[in-house]
Amino acid sequence: MECTLVEVAPSSDFSIQNLPFGIYSANGNGPQVGVAIGEWILNMSALAGAGLFAHIKQLDAQVFAQPRLNDYMALGRPVWRAVRAVLQDFLANANNAVRTQLAAAEDVLVPMGAAQMHLPARIGDYTDFYASREHATNVGMMFRGKDNALMPNWTHLPVGYHGRASSVVISGTPIRRPNGQRRPDAAEPPVFGPSVRLDYELEMGFFVGPGNELGAPLSLAQAEASIFGVVLLNDWSARDIQAWEYVPLGPFLGKNFGTTISPWVVTMEALEPFRVPQPPQVPRPLPYLSDAEGAPPAGYDIQLEVHLQAGGQGDFHLLTRSNLKYMYWTLKQQLAHHAVGGCNMRPGDLCGTGTISGPTKDSFGSMLELSWSGKSAIQLGDSQETRRFIEDNDVIRITGFCQGADGRRVGFGECTGQLLPASSLELS
Amino acid sequence: MECTLVEVAPSSDFSIQNLPFGIYSANGNGPQVGVAIGEWILNMSALAGAGLFAHIKQLDAQVFAQPRLNDYMALGRPVWRAVRAVLQDFLANANNAVRTQLAAAEDVLVPMGAAQMHLPARIGDYTDFYASREHATNVGMMFRGKDNALMPNWTHLPVGYHGRASSVVISGTPIRRPNGQRRPDAAEPPVFGPSVRLDYELEMGFFVGPGNELGAPLSLAQAEASIFGVVLLNDWSARDIQAWEYVPLGPFLGKNFGTTISPWVVTMEALEPFRVPQPPQVPRPLPYLSDAEGAPPAGYDIQLEVHLQAGGQGDFHLLTRSNLKYMYWTLKQQLAHHAVGGCNMRPGDLCGTGTISGPTKDSFGSMLELSWSGKSAIQLGDSQETRRFIEDNDVIRITGFCQGADGRRVGFGECTGQLLPASSLELS
Repeated sequence: MECTLVEVAPSSDFSIQNLPFGIYSANGNGPQVGVAIGEWILNMSALAGAGLFAHIKQLDAQVFAQPRLNDYMALGRPVWRAVRAVLQDFLANANNAVRTQLAAAEDVLVPMGAAQMHLPARIGDYTDFYASREHATNVGMMFRGKDNALMPNWTHLPVGYHGRASSVVISGTPIRRPNGQRRPDAAEPPVFGPSVRLDYELEMGFFVGPGNELGAPLSLAQAEASIFGVVLLNDWSARDIQAWEYVPLGPFLGKNFGTTISPWVVTMEALEPFRVPQPPQVPRPLPYLSDAEGAPPAGYDIQLEVHLQAGGQGDFHLLTRSNLKYMYWTLKQQLAHHAVGGCNMRPGDLCGTGTISGPTKDSFGSMLELSWSGKSAIQLGDSQETRRFIEDNDVIRITGFCQGADGRRVGFGECTGQLLPASSLELS
Repeated sequence: MECTLVEVAPSSDFSIQNLPFGIYSANGNGPQVGVAIGEWILNMSALAGAGLFAHIKQLDAQVFAQPRLNDYMALGRPVWRAVRAVLQDFLANANNAVRTQLAAAEDVLVPMGAAQMHLPARIGDYTDFYASREHATNVGMMFRGKDNALMPNWTHLPVGYHGRASSVVISGTPIRRPNGQRRPDAAEPPVFGPSVRLDYELEMGFFVGPGNELGAPLSLAQAEASIFGVVLLNDWSARDIQAWEYVPLGPFLGKNFGTTISPWVVTMEALEPFRVPQPPQVPRPLPYLSDAEGAPPAGYDIQLEVHLQAGGQGDFHLLTRSNLKYMYWTLKQQLAHHAVGGCNMRPGDLCGTGTISGPTKDSFGSMLELSWSGKSAIQLGDSQETRRFIEDNDVIRITGFCQGADGRRVGFGECTGQLLPASSLELS
């Protein structure tokens, strides 16, 4: 299938096979729902006004005029599929009834360069998992030694923790280096000041669709049906603050100064062709986390890269090349586990996968792992520069895409953020 | 000062010195802002319509017609104080200009018995601290032995973790016992089923007012100015699920199946007369957590009780008698620490104090402590019944009040919830 309404370059993340959803503002109008196609944004509210979705009974077209996707996410897979089919026909079929009525295609298109992107949803709650075996093993080896790297619970459940929803920001928002307590010398009292071990974590995040009521768990199949789509996610981490504070209740200020996500939510419909088997799970998980016989594979082949631009200038240097398929616990296992005790998941809730590290060193998803806790310097490409952790004004950029067999990409755009110097703290 | 509009019994939690804010619905109308006085609720929207607050310039009277307090919480202390002064004059002064204009006082009053209460705010984020030294020591002794009871960080910072906002519910909402993974035998794999060590935690929670922007910390004084008010809070806890899951990232499913709060938010203005010194802090905290010389005491003398009604029938039996004054880390220290790395706090965010245990056994704020991890049975008053943890259909009720020197109370009403049996899980 080819888009005939606008030209889409083969290298574009936003082919007609993708059609990710986002919230944009342009032309002096407030934030509203858009869908990316090539270098353009489809104005979904205008398309609804032209009657494109009129036959989809469960769809109140007002959901596209809203400044967030929560209400659209609540509608569920049958509606999402119907809308996707209608959009693909509109874009590919020059004889589409609505398309032939439009005075000009420009009435429903906004150039990406003229739009500002916003958070896709009001994120009611944000949860972060720890679902890559390679990452958990690497971090465990550094903190507890090789023999105790993985905790006994790790292969039985997707370990996760509640994160901070208020500080989830959209790609392009600068992040300020946090001040905080750390204890560089275990024989001395803690000190206060800017974090000196500031890190990124390469993650993806999924948005919850319909969700569940309090006290009513989701089966694994229901959990899969309730996932709307996926974004890139950078879980900025202050390792020194985290190391001092995290016992016994987990990460807190080491994480809550900022989490960056990419603006376009790639739907599970678009990712369907890129399913691959997840890594073998031994021991077999408990029944509520185990797929029925014959279920389709639940991993996804999504190629991921992290680049660093030193001091915010010049070339971007490759730090990490990884893939979502390395993830031990799948997205639906994460969601089913989250809800199994009755926790209510709401449309627009965000779950991060945890750092996605692969088996080889070039696939490690954080500088903590790449520099092995700061012990070795990371060379930045052919430049003279090295890093152990992120320095002031460095820019971290995460990108990702699925490569379709037909040469078309289903891509995620960018998740980018610049680290600003810590504020000089004058608190009195 | 006496209320002359309606009669208020001396034993009432809701004297004219209190005036807590809540969200209620009655008479077929949707949720809106009310203030409790005796057995009545003041309809704040009706009072605003009558012009009672017309001279308070920063107050858009529309904030009282809203179904949540977030916008009122955002206004800050000068407005809160002005509204309180106006309300006290209206209630006490029979010659108050607005009062003499009203056709009947009933036009602005709703009997509490005819109203349904709702969550006071849309809770953007919920955080739970661990700020009682006695509680942290008790739990630490059970899990790590007497010599390692308190972690090294505990006396340097208020340890806390992000909780789940979606499952915070209003008093009276039943809580369903969660299913989940636990590992009763450390030599065997984990098992799945209903939690068998279900507990309450006696806490209080504070609502954030104006808050701060991302990257802009709050000083201790700014943090104090940003606290709107306080509620009772029950942090329901599944100890067996928590014990298996919590390393290394903290509590997750052991906590997120439900958190109950009382409906009336008692303002810091009402609590002002009940300030008492906090426990001595040794070592002295870092400067961002240390008060200026001459600052008023930052503890509060709030008497707290927990009762259990066995199986939801018959008498309520006293389990815990504690006091907020035992809390080592004060409310403003908790909030200042939360924001010091730049985490943005939004109006309506909720922070729990953590379990409030005192020095004596009858003041322990959880059954984990009262039964010393289930080792000894807790006698329920003069009855034949005992408990080690909460059983199905038991009701847990938290109450609390400050006793004024004039015999008037500033009280919190109730934070009550019944534990329903676990659902029979048929997930497929």
